[in-house]
Amino acid sequence: MRAMVIRQFGESDVFESAELATPQVKSGHVLVNVAATSVNTVDNMIRQMGSDLPFSPALPAVLGMDFAGTVTAVGDGVDNFAVGDEVYGCAGGLADLPGAMAEYMLADADLIAHKPKSLSMREAAAMPLVGITAYEGLSRANVSAGQKVLVHGGAGGVGHIALQIAKYLGADVYSTGGGDTQLKLIETLGATGINYRDETVTDYVEKHTNGHGFDAIFDSVGGANLLNSFDAAALNAQIATTVSLLELDLSLAHMKGLSLHVVFMLIPMIHNHKRAEHGAILTKLAEIIDAGHMQVIVDEQRYTLEQAGAAQDRLTSGKGMGKVVIEI
Amino acid sequence: MRAMVIRQFGESDVFESAELATPQVKSGHVLVNVAATSVNTVDNMIRQMGSDLPFSPALPAVLGMDFAGTVTAVGDGVDNFAVGDEVYGCAGGLADLPGAMAEYMLADADLIAHKPKSLSMREAAAMPLVGITAYEGLSRANVSAGQKVLVHGGAGGVGHIALQIAKYLGADVYSTGGGDTQLKLIETLGATGINYRDETVTDYVEKHTNGHGFDAIFDSVGGANLLNSFDAAALNAQIATTVSLLELDLSLAHMKGLSLHVVFMLIPMIHNHKRAEHGAILTKLAEIIDAGHMQVIVDEQRYTLEQAGAAQDRLTSGKGMGKVVIEI
Repeated sequence: MRAMVIRQFGESDVFESAELATPQVKSGHVLVNVAATSVNTVDNMIRQMGSDLPFSPALPAVLGMDFAGTVTAVGDGVDNFAVGDEVYGCAGGLADLPGAMAEYMLADADLIAHKPKSLSMREAAAMPLVGITAYEGLSRANVSAGQKVLVHGGAGGVGHIALQIAKYLGADVYSTGGGDTQLKLIETLGATGINYRDETVTDYVEKHTNGHGFDAIFDSVGGANLLNSFDAAALNAQIATTVSLLELDLSLAHMKGLSLHVVFMLIPMIHNHKRAEHGAILTKLAEIIDAGHMQVIVDEQRYTLEQAGAAQDRLTSGKGMGKVVIEI
Repeated sequence: MRAMVIRQFGESDVFESAELATPQVKSGHVLVNVAATSVNTVDNMIRQMGSDLPFSPALPAVLGMDFAGTVTAVGDGVDNFAVGDEVYGCAGGLADLPGAMAEYMLADADLIAHKPKSLSMREAAAMPLVGITAYEGLSRANVSAGQKVLVHGGAGGVGHIALQIAKYLGADVYSTGGGDTQLKLIETLGATGINYRDETVTDYVEKHTNGHGFDAIFDSVGGANLLNSFDAAALNAQIATTVSLLELDLSLAHMKGLSLHVVFMLIPMIHNHKRAEHGAILTKLAEIIDAGHMQVIVDEQRYTLEQAGAAQDRLTSGKGMGKVVIEI
């Protein structure tokens, strides 16, 4: 089968076209003819940082976590998928799991679900990692109808899905962005936009919550921005974040009695831990999408498998809007 | 009425006997003839740090948060308490709420509950702050039957209640202590003791969880000890703590996808925020206690109102075992 492999970690020119043996299906898995894979920041981190990340694959490696495609073989013990089913998931490209930058991919059946019928393969491949991340964060933060919810980075991959799921759950949603294009997308998706370059946290907390703070915050920026989240939070608020690889002053979290939920969605893949929860979330996301409650924004620029490096560069450049997808 | 007041912040000799006007009952409140008040670390912090703490009262002040006593007057709008009822709660001694180091105390009816029938006034006065703190932390951490739960500081005020509530909820409970007396109490209350001076986190995680880590951790030590909690936690575990006034490296919380719940139980008193939740928790705690599932450990040394300073010193000394109580 055709694949893109890396034989060393480094810049985006490390990708090489290669002809690999098509994987054999095995127990608990399905073999998928991959139609598309999307680029996530963590794919680029693995390619650049290599063994500095504890979950990077051994070399040579096929990267690519997200995929959409068609089942071509079904392993023993798998009874919810059949040959010909269109599926999607986030199931490889790290640790000992081969990735989706290839014609075929072996995927743990627990990690995948039937693709949303209303999405193209290209759109479906853009959803899994960001959709699962957003859903997990909002679930752990117990977001519910009537709450005031703030999404930091609502025009980003995870953020634009978190914003829509929060809306779907009945919350009153506000979201930060750093420019007109970002804020326009945020408003189009149904949230009230906040330009974090123009408004202080104190200002927008006063304006949108009468100074009480937000009941729940999805901080898809994370890191040092968590201090802004603590500042914007109501007493006993829930904060979910995707990035907490830092030393942080937790004093304000103490005085407000906050809950902080760190979402690291690779755990089921890395540790083979509760993988079926990811399949279940993807099934739920497909229902929400097919009922018309959510759209996935895909970057207008299109890439073939052989342009994998350029696709990763597109994400890094920040010039695109929406998920960058590679069509196999 | 007799009371102990402070006219300046400082060491434990700042307490003075005084004769104050008995408070008048007001709407939403009850007047309580106080039988006993217990000493909490935060009472000592207020007395020492004064206006360096944002929630310290103005001077002169009557301190003392926890109390047990008998209702002598009922304000308008209060229908769940009557004159003669024995009640307990944590309802004063900070901000604009007069404390319990006095013959009478005006208490917001939302913050209190009927005293457990099986406890003496002395024992009941020891329970509110630590009981509410423990209950809130375990609730927010979703502790449930069959889980492996670790309580840091299980011989302390909050810890010894947290340990028993976790047992009551059906968890398999382990608890750290630093000496034979502490570990004996922990074992007596039904948990497996861990001497943190003798065993490393890696050792006891291996021994008690086969290396998987604990599903939930109540860290009543908190602060820098949170790093031990992160280390002892299972993937996606829940950690509740009472102390997070510091800068902390959250990297391990990221890699394990943890949830951190900071319990600051003074919030309802300071901010007049969801006070009725405290009354409801105290009612639930009374049920658990009266059903024989929980005991409160009270220090053997007894103190009168006039010995308030000595009682606070007893807590600071660390020589006692169990809550220090002042009888009015």
